[in-house]
Amino acid sequence: MSDRVYNFSPGPAVLPVPVLEQAQRDLLALPGAGASILEISHRSKAFEGILAEAKSRLKSLLGIPDNYQILFLQGGARLQFSMIPMNLLRAAGTAAEYVVTGSWSKSALEEAKKEGPVTVAWNGKETNYDRLPALGSLPINPQAAYVYIASNETIQGIQFATDPDMGDVPLICDASSDFLHRPVDISRYGMLFACAQKNAGPAGVTIVIIRDDLLARGQDSLPGYLNYRVHVENNSLWNTPPVFGIYVFGLIAQWLQEEIGGLDKMYALNRQKAQMLYEVIDASQGFYRGHAQPECRSLMNVTFRLPNEELEKKFLTEAAKLKLCDLKGHRSVGGMRASIYNAMPLEGVRTLRDFMQEFSANNGA
Amino acid sequence: MSDRVYNFSPGPAVLPVPVLEQAQRDLLALPGAGASILEISHRSKAFEGILAEAKSRLKSLLGIPDNYQILFLQGGARLQFSMIPMNLLRAAGTAAEYVVTGSWSKSALEEAKKEGPVTVAWNGKETNYDRLPALGSLPINPQAAYVYIASNETIQGIQFATDPDMGDVPLICDASSDFLHRPVDISRYGMLFACAQKNAGPAGVTIVIIRDDLLARGQDSLPGYLNYRVHVENNSLWNTPPVFGIYVFGLIAQWLQEEIGGLDKMYALNRQKAQMLYEVIDASQGFYRGHAQPECRSLMNVTFRLPNEELEKKFLTEAAKLKLCDLKGHRSVGGMRASIYNAMPLEGVRTLRDFMQEFSANNGA
Repeated sequence: MSDRVYNFSPGPAVLPVPVLEQAQRDLLALPGAGASILEISHRSKAFEGILAEAKSRLKSLLGIPDNYQILFLQGGARLQFSMIPMNLLRAAGTAAEYVVTGSWSKSALEEAKKEGPVTVAWNGKETNYDRLPALGSLPINPQAAYVYIASNETIQGIQFATDPDMGDVPLICDASSDFLHRPVDISRYGMLFACAQKNAGPAGVTIVIIRDDLLARGQDSLPGYLNYRVHVENNSLWNTPPVFGIYVFGLIAQWLQEEIGGLDKMYALNRQKAQMLYEVIDASQGFYRGHAQPECRSLMNVTFRLPNEELEKKFLTEAAKLKLCDLKGHRSVGGMRASIYNAMPLEGVRTLRDFMQEFSANNGA
Repeated sequence: MSDRVYNFSPGPAVLPVPVLEQAQRDLLALPGAGASILEISHRSKAFEGILAEAKSRLKSLLGIPDNYQILFLQGGARLQFSMIPMNLLRAAGTAAEYVVTGSWSKSALEEAKKEGPVTVAWNGKETNYDRLPALGSLPINPQAAYVYIASNETIQGIQFATDPDMGDVPLICDASSDFLHRPVDISRYGMLFACAQKNAGPAGVTIVIIRDDLLARGQDSLPGYLNYRVHVENNSLWNTPPVFGIYVFGLIAQWLQEEIGGLDKMYALNRQKAQMLYEVIDASQGFYRGHAQPECRSLMNVTFRLPNEELEKKFLTEAAKLKLCDLKGHRSVGGMRASIYNAMPLEGVRTLRDFMQEFSANNGA
């Protein structure tokens, strides 16, 4: 284990070590299957069990009501950006409303525009996406096809802290970068989706949780792979699913249930980790400047700048010596980004906090 | 290794043991990266190297000309069934011609019909897809948007043995189930694609080789993820690619180059393996009846029936005792299917051959 660093990458990102160890054990022969997890048929008894268990663990973790379906798809959030309007907007007869809070909801909006009428319900561009609107106070058309949000914007480091109540308008949520980081009231959402490569597995699997009544909107003229209903009717087996990604997701769900003790405990741990870093920022007398407005701060991605770019370079170099890696922020925001997803150990955050304190003390705070 | 069976699954399918062993070693920490292959960023130096090497090995293995691009996508062959007509048919002004030789080309045709005008150039339905047409003699419109074929039909076990010459009409080929099983003259194809889970890796990555001039047909109005040009312009990094699948594909390409010694040698080995089984069928005096007409037999999927269903059940049960697994054929053809992809060891085929001989001797041949 000693050759592992503290990986603050925004995604693909750190995974729980017990999950990696289990996957490693099953890589030549999955017990009882006589073949690697990479080699078993998606129609095999072994995979049937893996798929069923992944679904049931997710259902239990999030308390997903019976009128929602769980899908495991490919193509990442980017393909969802198109599938959502193709399925839910084309036949709706009214516009969809997009809440543009950062880079990812902006990309979703661009794809939706190609598929049907959209309205921008709110746009944070003018303040470089450093804050969030009060969703309840937006002038949303009560007949809107749906309202679209990203619960967490990885690049900017801002996050909705609670589940919005949009009444009867279906709320569609990109939870790619904060999926399973806290308990969620799924009944508030028409659909919630997440690519796995932050909190839920390796890149290549996308989890979709969708309410039954929305499935009827998908028209038969849609390409088969892009029709949610086709995947529901075939239990995600219409085509060969990303077997390995689903398997790893199942191990992560098991880790959340059995090692962490559920999403309440995960949430407490995530708040503790984020608080450690935000406290350093707030106590630094302006040496560290957070990008997000304090009330919108993300528990997953902590974004901050230093007094100048030279110090930022020095920060990265010295951090790397302590095995604190991938802390460079996205170019559109600059500075640093510490992505502290579920699997980032407390020890990693503690090491980063101590380093941040030392670095600001040594460099002029 | 003793708990591994001989896995004749049609896909996901057997992988080379040295590839599995390497992936197992890298599963906790990729040397030099400080993180698992499942955790590294797709923007990291480590993955840049993996992607570049996977592409260059593939280019070298198939002798891909410089005017072709290599993409690593998600969504399997099923998504290609839609992406192909969306990109290559919508703006073409003429119909595409589909050669329907089995289940997979039939599924491709169904998706294409949703996207634009298509013509069925040939249909093998009446003989339950047991044979192939001479492509050169089909009345293909020389102005056709493209001609579509599946080089190998996994379910029926029939395969084009050579690269067709379709002149100036772009030939689009689903090579999912025989990719890299022999040298191919890529210049005969406008586009050739393969989902990985037969000869090229775990489920979840799809390899596309496409000629430059065809990229211009993709319109800007296409969903971003479904536009080949978008992926080419971003070197398959427009969205987070299936990192692990690309990594395993690179290991397989390396195995083909360094352990097998290239595609000529792979082809010789594949012919040897298939011949061992077809010889038993032909020498069985009708006990085993091959589904495919002899001149169309697949080197990848050997399909055959036994005198009756009772004997077929018995065959499967006794085979399993020898660790010969997943030999049951698809319900549309019935009987047996031995999928003997690149990674199926000669020893596995030999064991199956010996068992087949013994079984027919003991059961009435």
